[in-house]
Amino acid sequence: MVNTKEIARLCGVSRGTVDRALNNRPGISPETKRKILKVAEEVGYRPNFIAKSLVTKKTMTIAIVVFDINNRIFSQIANAIETRARELGYFVYLTLTHKKPELEKEYIRYLVDRKVDGIILMSVNKGQEFEKYLRNLKVPIVTFGNKISDEFPFIWINDEKAIIDAVQYLASKNYEKLIYITPALRESNPSNNIYGPEQRLKGFNKAMKLHKNMESIVITDMNYIDTIDNISNLGNEKVAFLCSSDIYALDILKYAKNKGIHIPTEMGLMGFDNIDTIQYVTPSLATVGFSIEDIGIQLVNSLVDKIEGNEIPKRIQISHEIIEGETV
Amino acid sequence: MVNTKEIARLCGVSRGTVDRALNNRPGISPETKRKILKVAEEVGYRPNFIAKSLVTKKTMTIAIVVFDINNRIFSQIANAIETRARELGYFVYLTLTHKKPELEKEYIRYLVDRKVDGIILMSVNKGQEFEKYLRNLKVPIVTFGNKISDEFPFIWINDEKAIIDAVQYLASKNYEKLIYITPALRESNPSNNIYGPEQRLKGFNKAMKLHKNMESIVITDMNYIDTIDNISNLGNEKVAFLCSSDIYALDILKYAKNKGIHIPTEMGLMGFDNIDTIQYVTPSLATVGFSIEDIGIQLVNSLVDKIEGNEIPKRIQISHEIIEGETV
Repeated sequence: MVNTKEIARLCGVSRGTVDRALNNRPGISPETKRKILKVAEEVGYRPNFIAKSLVTKKTMTIAIVVFDINNRIFSQIANAIETRARELGYFVYLTLTHKKPELEKEYIRYLVDRKVDGIILMSVNKGQEFEKYLRNLKVPIVTFGNKISDEFPFIWINDEKAIIDAVQYLASKNYEKLIYITPALRESNPSNNIYGPEQRLKGFNKAMKLHKNMESIVITDMNYIDTIDNISNLGNEKVAFLCSSDIYALDILKYAKNKGIHIPTEMGLMGFDNIDTIQYVTPSLATVGFSIEDIGIQLVNSLVDKIEGNEIPKRIQISHEIIEGETV
Repeated sequence: MVNTKEIARLCGVSRGTVDRALNNRPGISPETKRKILKVAEEVGYRPNFIAKSLVTKKTMTIAIVVFDINNRIFSQIANAIETRARELGYFVYLTLTHKKPELEKEYIRYLVDRKVDGIILMSVNKGQEFEKYLRNLKVPIVTFGNKISDEFPFIWINDEKAIIDAVQYLASKNYEKLIYITPALRESNPSNNIYGPEQRLKGFNKAMKLHKNMESIVITDMNYIDTIDNISNLGNEKVAFLCSSDIYALDILKYAKNKGIHIPTEMGLMGFDNIDTIQYVTPSLATVGFSIEDIGIQLVNSLVDKIEGNEIPKRIQISHEIIEGETV
């Protein structure tokens, strides 16, 4: 079998240059790299990555472990992570846990056994046992969405403050009653990690203390549309629905259209996440936005720093903003 | 280090049963499996998958190689594949090629070097050189969306027939002029694989021969909104836009709303794919639908059959249907 020495001879370059090209490392001109890769392909060179990884312990692979990609926010973050990781020469595996705690642990163990260099995790698990589990794997981990503990770097917005700002915005529009929709709080097993939704609820409750003249209802079940439907009369007050995620707001918008309830005159509506789907919806949805690209970049930069043995911050906070819309 | 023999002794089961539990194979009760996994975790058992895979050559991992997950159709297919693969005990890596031919080849080689058991591919590459490249990798491959050649099993709808049916539907609604939007035909490098869009265009051209009284325009550039905007007058005929993908139809819907063009009275609009995003849009979009779940199941079933050494069909055709909507 052809080895890198042979390829170096054929290309008239050093073996180090060949290694650079084959392992996607910087310090080589695109032209030289192309030439080497072409020659390597022509001579049928196949690096034995698995045998090699037993020695070098580095695979230039990171993994994203996330619930699913049904909610656009996760697709968008995965895309952002992938783009940044590729810039730094890393391959990316995306794995979906479907919010199943055992499956998540299986996937993580599986990835570690396959020697990924690091993991970007939005976890459904939490608690000391899980932390111990992760610690024992001795693999660099950064987290987003659901914080696990101060031990695992967490890169995300300030969910609590973001909801407080959303309520402030609705208050400034003279809403008198807010109905907060947060099904994630009840749809999953009580032992699941729902840090993000919990922080948002905390923000909502705090905001309600700041706006004592406002009434509020919190709906935590997955059949929130039925629940809304059973609130037979919205009353004479000016009511707005505030949703912990745009996907719920889109559902309510659809419900209101079907029922012939006019938004915003009969009820206000606000989402959270500013997913790209909402650009196609009318009336335009008011929501809370943040830079998904920044989250992807920071997650990858931090993970790669950690992989390279550097200390990284335990918390990087991404800023958020209120996106005004026609629904309030 | 603890081995499977030791775990078998601790659990009072055979080593084969322990292997079943650890490798996620059938033929073991969930209860026994849970017990074994618990003991394995407690004693700190860590299978050396990489060393082991050098011997068994089976990793119970498959990979999806796809453009991106920006277009919902890909997210939905990836989700469907992942769900079916997990049912059959396979782990799934999702990798994104961003329509870059070299990156796609890099990813595929990378996955093969990491011993994935098989690959589900929507390719941006095509041609004899690429076919040879894939052939030499000697890994089971099934394809969707863009066919490569008869050599690589292709599981997808009949794109050509689907567009013919769409045109037939618009003709039945008395449209006199169709504007077909298919930017994929020009946005990419001419050497890229655009089999799917090509088949759809072929269908459109065939349909136009069947409906000789209808006028037609084909718009193939990515700035299709500008192009539409420059068609200063839609004329006196009844015009409909037919899009090769829902994402373009959503864009046009947004454009029409901004321009105050009423759909369907001033123009008709039809998409393709029936992505889940459109459920939130009003007026409801007419489109071409097909079972994304079926595609996922068939792709995984076929790939696993092939991995297990069985012959599989070269073509599995998934049926499509016209989804009526308020936009025509």
